[in-house]
Amino acid sequence: MPGLKGNALVAQSGGPTAVINSSACGVIQEALAQRNIGTVFAGLNGILGVLHEELFDAGAEGAEAIDALRRCPASALGSCRYKLKSLDESRAHYDRILEVFKAHDIRYFFYIGGNDSMDTADKLGKLAGETDYDLIVMGVPKTIDNDLDFTDHCPGYGSVAKYVATAAMEAGKDTEALYTSDTCTVLETMGRNAGWIAAAAGVAHRCEEDAPHLVYLPEGPFDADRFVADVKECLSRIGRCFIVASEGLADAGGNYIADQGSSAFGKDSFGHTQLGGVAEALKGIVQEQVGVKCRYIKPGTSQRTAEHFASKTDADEAYMAGRKAVQHAAEGTSGYMVTLVRESNSPYKCTTGLARLGKVANAAKQVPREWINEAGNHITPELCAYIIPLMQGEVAVDMAADGLPDYVRLKRKLVEKKTPEYEV
Amino acid sequence: MPGLKGNALVAQSGGPTAVINSSACGVIQEALAQRNIGTVFAGLNGILGVLHEELFDAGAEGAEAIDALRRCPASALGSCRYKLKSLDESRAHYDRILEVFKAHDIRYFFYIGGNDSMDTADKLGKLAGETDYDLIVMGVPKTIDNDLDFTDHCPGYGSVAKYVATAAMEAGKDTEALYTSDTCTVLETMGRNAGWIAAAAGVAHRCEEDAPHLVYLPEGPFDADRFVADVKECLSRIGRCFIVASEGLADAGGNYIADQGSSAFGKDSFGHTQLGGVAEALKGIVQEQVGVKCRYIKPGTSQRTAEHFASKTDADEAYMAGRKAVQHAAEGTSGYMVTLVRESNSPYKCTTGLARLGKVANAAKQVPREWINEAGNHITPELCAYIIPLMQGEVAVDMAADGLPDYVRLKRKLVEKKTPEYEV
Repeated sequence: MPGLKGNALVAQSGGPTAVINSSACGVIQEALAQRNIGTVFAGLNGILGVLHEELFDAGAEGAEAIDALRRCPASALGSCRYKLKSLDESRAHYDRILEVFKAHDIRYFFYIGGNDSMDTADKLGKLAGETDYDLIVMGVPKTIDNDLDFTDHCPGYGSVAKYVATAAMEAGKDTEALYTSDTCTVLETMGRNAGWIAAAAGVAHRCEEDAPHLVYLPEGPFDADRFVADVKECLSRIGRCFIVASEGLADAGGNYIADQGSSAFGKDSFGHTQLGGVAEALKGIVQEQVGVKCRYIKPGTSQRTAEHFASKTDADEAYMAGRKAVQHAAEGTSGYMVTLVRESNSPYKCTTGLARLGKVANAAKQVPREWINEAGNHITPELCAYIIPLMQGEVAVDMAADGLPDYVRLKRKLVEKKTPEYEV
Repeated sequence: MPGLKGNALVAQSGGPTAVINSSACGVIQEALAQRNIGTVFAGLNGILGVLHEELFDAGAEGAEAIDALRRCPASALGSCRYKLKSLDESRAHYDRILEVFKAHDIRYFFYIGGNDSMDTADKLGKLAGETDYDLIVMGVPKTIDNDLDFTDHCPGYGSVAKYVATAAMEAGKDTEALYTSDTCTVLETMGRNAGWIAAAAGVAHRCEEDAPHLVYLPEGPFDADRFVADVKECLSRIGRCFIVASEGLADAGGNYIADQGSSAFGKDSFGHTQLGGVAEALKGIVQEQVGVKCRYIKPGTSQRTAEHFASKTDADEAYMAGRKAVQHAAEGTSGYMVTLVRESNSPYKCTTGLARLGKVANAAKQVPREWINEAGNHITPELCAYIIPLMQGEVAVDMAADGLPDYVRLKRKLVEKKTPEYEV
C-alpha cells in the first residue's frame, strides 16, 4: 500500500530496556517527517492504551523532548504485559483495536516489543486485511533477552550486556580484595530461557584472575554436584570465586533452581513463570557444601534500565531500527519486523533487514551449545567476539544540577476519545 | 617527630569503596614525593599482610599504575576484615606489627579504613610510643556507610550515594512503565546501623511521580503495619510504589527485618551480624498484605564498587584526604585521622581537618531525626542539600577495546621477608 495516507500509532510492550525509547524516538521522528503520515499517536501503556483509547499526540511533546528519548531508560510511552490471545479467543479485542484505529484514522501501526508483541502485530495486520481496512503494521525488535530469531541481535541486549559485564568486573574486584573473608559472590542475571545476558558477563573474564570465574546459562541442565566441584576447583586455584548465574537455571528434570513455589505471583501476566532467587539458592549451596561465605547480587530491573552506562552502539541501532520501520512502511511494506544484520565483525558493521512477523513470533533463539565451554561453566571466545561489538561506546546522558541523570518525562496529554468505553 | 626519616607503609581495610584506591593513590604519590620518606610499602590485604610480612613496594608499580588507582574500584592493595582486639587481648599481634615495621624501618603508617581501622591505628601508635619506637600513624577515612564522626562526610559515600540514587531513578522508570502488572519494587541498600545510603536514594525523588516514593532508614523502628498503610496510600495516589529500604531495618524490639537466623555465616569476622534479605521480606509483605506484584533489587557489592559512575567530587576528596595525611605526617603530626570539612555548601567548598584517632574509633554517626520526614518514610530537603554536593561529576574511567572499563591490577610483587613466620 505505497502512498497510504493517514495517521500513525506507536506503542511499546513488555519489559523495558535502556534503548526502547531510542526506537520510539526513531519511529516518531521518522513518522513526523513522512509526507503521508499525519498525526503520530502513541498508545499509553502499550496495547492497553489502544484498547482503552488512551492515546496521546507524540508530536505535541515537542522536538526536544522526543530527541531526549534517545537518552532515557525504560518505556516513556508506558508499557504493559497484556497479551492478546488468538484471533478466535480474543476476537473482540482485535476488533476493538481496529475500531480505535478507524476512529483516529490510524493507518500505520508500529509496535516495539518482543515475540508476543510481534504475534499481536501479525494478527492485527491479518485481521485488517480480512476486513478491508488499509493498515500497515511494522514491528521493531526489543528484548534484553536477545532471543528473537531472524535478527543477529536485539536492541536492548548490548546495553544489558555492558551493564552485567561491568558489574561482574567491579564486584569481582570487591571479592578479590576481600577474599580472606568474603570468598564467593553470586551475581544473578535475568534470562528465563536463554542465557545471553549471563553469557555477556563472561566477557569481563579477560584472564584467569578476572571475574567471573564461573558462568551458568539455562541452555544446559544445572547440576548442583558439578557446581560444588567447580567452585572448589576455583577456590583451590585462585582462592576466591565469582559466579554468574541466569535466573532461568533448571536441573535435568526441568525444575527451576529458583523455584518460587506456588505463589499467587509466581507467573506474570503473559503466563511466564516469574523467577527469582537463583542467587540465594546458589549462596546456600556454597555456604553449606563448600563451607565459605558467599554474598549475592541481584541487579533486577537495574540491569535493563542502566541508561547511565548504556551501549552507544545499542542505542544507535535501536534508533536505526525505529527509523527503518517507518521508512519501509512509507514504501508500503507491511507485516514485517525490522531485523539487525551483522554485515561484518571486524570492523563491525550492522545494517537492517526484514523478517515476517508471523515467523518471528514463534521462534526463540538460545545460546548455541558450541559457544558454551565444554564443562558448561563459561563461554567461548566465539561468544565474546559476538558480544563485544554490541557493547561499544557509552550513551552521553544529560546530567542535572543534583549530580544525577536528567531523564525526560513526556507530558502524555491524552487526546479526546471518539469511541465508547471498552472493558478489558 | 618532624623530620623523622624512614620508610612508609599504607594499607586498606574493610569493605571496599569506589574511591578507596583514590586515597591510596594520594598517600603513595605524596609519600613518594616526601624527602624524609624512603620506600613506600603496601600491606597486602590490609593488616593481615603486615602480620604475615606480606609487603610490596608501591613505588615499583610505576607512576602510571599508581595514577590509574584514581579510576579503579575496590581495594587494589587488598583488604581484610581482620580486627585486632584490645592491647591486652591481642598484645602479641601489636608486637608483631612493630617487629615487621622495625625490620623494614617503617616509620610512617597510613591506614585507610573505618572505625575499626582507626582503633587499630590508634593502639598501634600508642604502643609504639610506649616502646620508644618512633612511628607516625595517620588515618584516612573510608566508608560507604558515612557513619564516622568528626568528619562532615566520608570518602566513599558520595559515590555510593550517586549509584543508589541513579539506580532508584532508573529502576523507578521501569516500575512506572509497567505499573499495570509490576506494581511495586523494593531496592535494598547497604547500611547496617546508619541510613545514609538509603537516604541518598531519596534524592532521586524530585517530584511526586519520581521514585523512590518511600524510603526507610534503620534510624527508627520499622513498623510493618505502617509500611503496608504507606504502600497502599502511595498506590491509591499514583498507582505504583517504589520503595528503598536499608538492610539494617529492625522492629521496635530490635529484631532485624532481614534476620538470617542462626546461620554459621550470619556474622562477619568483625562480629557484626551479616544482613541480607530485607528486600525479600518487604516483597513478601507487599504481595501478601497489599496484594500486588512486587519485584526487588539487591545491588549488593555493586553499589560500593560502581566506578563507572562514581562521583568525581568523592574521588577527588578521597585523593585529597590521602595526600593530606602524608603532608601532616611529614610535618610530624601523628595519631590523627584526616577529616573532611564542609566550608560552605553553596558554592560547595570542602577542606580537611584532623580528629584524634581514639575519638573517631568509638563514635558512629546516624542520620539526624530532623533530616527524616515526620512519617519516617522519606528524607527532608535538608538531607538532600547535604548529599547533593557529594554526588557532583563523574570519574572518567579508562575504557578498553572490548567496551568495558579498563581497571588497573597492581603487580604486588612481595618483598623479601626479614622476620620469622608468624601465625595469625
